[in-house]
Amino acid sequence: MAPPPNVKSEEIVEESMAYQLDKRPISTIVFIIAMQTEAFPLVKKFQLSQDTNSVFPEGVPWVRYHGTYKDLNLNIIWPGKDRAFGVDSVGTIPASLVTYASIQALKPDLIINAGTAGGFKAKGACIGDVFLASDVAFHDRRNPIPVFDLYGVGLRQAFSTPNLSKELNLKVGKLSTGDSLDMCPQDNALIIANDATTKDMEDNLNYFAIGFQGAAVAYVADLLKVPAIFIKAVTDVVDGDKPTADEFLQNLAAVTAALAETVPQVVDFINGKCLSEL
Amino acid sequence: MAPPPNVKSEEIVEESMAYQLDKRPISTIVFIIAMQTEAFPLVKKFQLSQDTNSVFPEGVPWVRYHGTYKDLNLNIIWPGKDRAFGVDSVGTIPASLVTYASIQALKPDLIINAGTAGGFKAKGACIGDVFLASDVAFHDRRNPIPVFDLYGVGLRQAFSTPNLSKELNLKVGKLSTGDSLDMCPQDNALIIANDATTKDMEDNLNYFAIGFQGAAVAYVADLLKVPAIFIKAVTDVVDGDKPTADEFLQNLAAVTAALAETVPQVVDFINGKCLSEL
Repeated sequence: MAPPPNVKSEEIVEESMAYQLDKRPISTIVFIIAMQTEAFPLVKKFQLSQDTNSVFPEGVPWVRYHGTYKDLNLNIIWPGKDRAFGVDSVGTIPASLVTYASIQALKPDLIINAGTAGGFKAKGACIGDVFLASDVAFHDRRNPIPVFDLYGVGLRQAFSTPNLSKELNLKVGKLSTGDSLDMCPQDNALIIANDATTKDMEDNLNYFAIGFQGAAVAYVADLLKVPAIFIKAVTDVVDGDKPTADEFLQNLAAVTAALAETVPQVVDFINGKCLSEL
Repeated sequence: MAPPPNVKSEEIVEESMAYQLDKRPISTIVFIIAMQTEAFPLVKKFQLSQDTNSVFPEGVPWVRYHGTYKDLNLNIIWPGKDRAFGVDSVGTIPASLVTYASIQALKPDLIINAGTAGGFKAKGACIGDVFLASDVAFHDRRNPIPVFDLYGVGLRQAFSTPNLSKELNLKVGKLSTGDSLDMCPQDNALIIANDATTKDMEDNLNYFAIGFQGAAVAYVADLLKVPAIFIKAVTDVVDGDKPTADEFLQNLAAVTAALAETVPQVVDFINGKCLSEL
């Protein structure tokens, strides 16, 4: 059946609007960062100030640091300390909530999820490496019902940034997200995909790292149609010998410094560019 | 050190305000329900209408059904079908997002998370049982770093409803939440707490059921200081012989009907009462 006559013109209008939007330089960036130790060096580097009047609801621990850097309006959102336990509000639920609330309040052009992650030695990740994620997925949402299995894995592509990765010589790989620091065999099976419930999983053999936020940020950014990229510095080797918790605490400070060097380079590269130039 | 003279009077004012709030009959209830098959019988029973002008952001699949029933303003929030995969948006991330957005938009007096769950035969749960949760926690957020371990488990008490459970003769037990339908040994260890990382965990031996939403709804309700209760009907036996996926699909319709009988009894009980009378 031929499309009704108005479809083509609507398509042209939509394409034209997308094109214009694409040609507008990026103005507002929202960083989603899980831990205070990851956020602080960047807050200092960009000379950002903490909000005095929060854009978030009363009582939530979420913290926004913001300021102008070159032509950019930068916002670093940290989910804050859990009120009950006093530790950083890590994990997918706080990450999804602050991503949602930040997009609603700040209407960013780009979301950047930056932080540390556990890397896979077998996939070429070394401690201190800073990666850009090409794709993100969950490895701890197992549901054997057809289609729900794919929904659980929730594979999403990061916004494509070929020029950025080339210019800064950043490694690119697939990022897997879960809410546990250890790796149970079931998680591992989903990550290396020898579980192979679907062909889609078989296509995704090369996860370089696991983190606490990535796929949750990707889910919400996709839901609200905001492009998102993922910058992850490797603090520990998941498939190495040492216990993960020890490695994590030992390397966190050093690797956070590496992240604090790379992120400003990324921001400098983004400054003055539109989305399609990344 | 003696408290400054104004503390006592402030305390009295606060207590008095809380008392007044407590004495106001419950007016607005928000139900958070994961699946369309769980929501529909209740939408029909309460003769609710689907929103034409959504209270949620453009583009999200979240659905609100609302209407007046007796003296209550009832809202059933279903996270809708995932746009990419076409299945119900189950799990903790959509649950946390819709709970957050619903509290912001509707300012409910009470949140009710109602739905189906897998039950533990060993703890007295039979298929078709409808439980009220006393406490909720996560069983798939393992983090061996001190205090982060407790944060991961995220144990929270449900709003206390001793009169409700007595009046309707509902079983009461502890609800555990995860994003997988199966049970890996690590999940199981956290649930039966033979993992026993902390005394707090040892105190929580008797989880009756696992579900996809409970602890996420509890987290957000606690964050925004809204009382929450959890009504769960048992669709399958986690510690039984049959595969969980099969059981789940077989029993879903029948058990949803049981839920659709109990929830109106709960609503009838709540009608005209204030929070402290539950």
